[in-house]
Amino acid sequence: MSLFITFEGGEGSGKSTALRKISELLIEKGYETVLTREPGGTPISEEIREVILDKKNTDMDKRTEALLYAASRRQHLVQRVWPALKEGKIVLCDRYLDSSLAYQGGARGIGLEEVLNINLFATENTYPDLTLLFDIDPKLGLARIAANASREVNRLDLEKLSFHEGVRKTFLELAARYPERFVIIDASKSPEEVVADSMKVILARLEK
Amino acid sequence: MSLFITFEGGEGSGKSTALRKISELLIEKGYETVLTREPGGTPISEEIREVILDKKNTDMDKRTEALLYAASRRQHLVQRVWPALKEGKIVLCDRYLDSSLAYQGGARGIGLEEVLNINLFATENTYPDLTLLFDIDPKLGLARIAANASREVNRLDLEKLSFHEGVRKTFLELAARYPERFVIIDASKSPEEVVADSMKVILARLEK
Repeated sequence: MSLFITFEGGEGSGKSTALRKISELLIEKGYETVLTREPGGTPISEEIREVILDKKNTDMDKRTEALLYAASRRQHLVQRVWPALKEGKIVLCDRYLDSSLAYQGGARGIGLEEVLNINLFATENTYPDLTLLFDIDPKLGLARIAANASREVNRLDLEKLSFHEGVRKTFLELAARYPERFVIIDASKSPEEVVADSMKVILARLEK
Repeated sequence: MSLFITFEGGEGSGKSTALRKISELLIEKGYETVLTREPGGTPISEEIREVILDKKNTDMDKRTEALLYAASRRQHLVQRVWPALKEGKIVLCDRYLDSSLAYQGGARGIGLEEVLNINLFATENTYPDLTLLFDIDPKLGLARIAANASREVNRLDLEKLSFHEGVRKTFLELAARYPERFVIIDASKSPEEVVADSMKVILARLEK
């Protein structure tokens, strides 16, 4: 049984670390999983991501940014996600559509419906089956990043705190708007608890 | 008086050569013109264009391509076109929105309305004041390119003839759909005649 699961949340929410651990646990239980994030090793998407995250591109317009994310998403969906789902695998994806809605639609103020619109063009209406929202106070998330010397700081990490608060607010609005696919995970808990909470939700879906 | 003029047409239609000559003639007449094409020297748009035209990216999905063109267009509009129009200049732009409609919407078969949709997001509904369509039989246009050793062949030139015929057909449909801004120029004529025909149309608009 294929399942498309996305992991969403602000910077420093720990979702990427949790995702790797969850993938291991699912494989141990005999599930075939594909762990990916949006450029996902597809060369075209990687090239697009380089343009987006390049720290020297500070004069990038917010609509340009939204269109580039949608383009990268499209290519990744076509080359990685759809083929894996067709093979009956569980796809665990680090960020997807909802990140664009929260970052560009909400926090940058373009508007949810406008950004949703270009993303429905990009994805041909492919929503995830399940979205785990790693919810955390941005102050705590950013402090985690600052304490982690091994993680490279990118252009988005350099935004003001109010920006990250806008991201969190929009993610919570999306969870309320799409209750059938969203589950909120309290990401301020310990990494072990966060993984355990996430596994409970995922296994409930798989065994349904 | 500012005026936003776009030059559209298939490969080898001679529009870029005509555009340069027309710019010179307008300057001689005392008009302030800005000659540009979509990456337009804006570093972000140039980077995006490199991804699009890279001959090794043959597995690029057509919706990815459409989103990348829209992203490049957005950045060019914000950094080049809008500022020039605000200063009262005549902007002569080599390809714009209608190229995406003809290439991705029509010839690649995504559909006009869908591609228009993401381009209205990109441009915030900024249509040109005047669009000169350099119409030519693709067989003749491609033969011109083949004969011109100084012009680098890009990924789009390598498409089949039927693709270029689809482009032409859609351009003509667009001219019929937007008669108030489209003027068709017979690009099979000599370069001098093409420039003269174009100048007649532009001066009529400017002196209106």
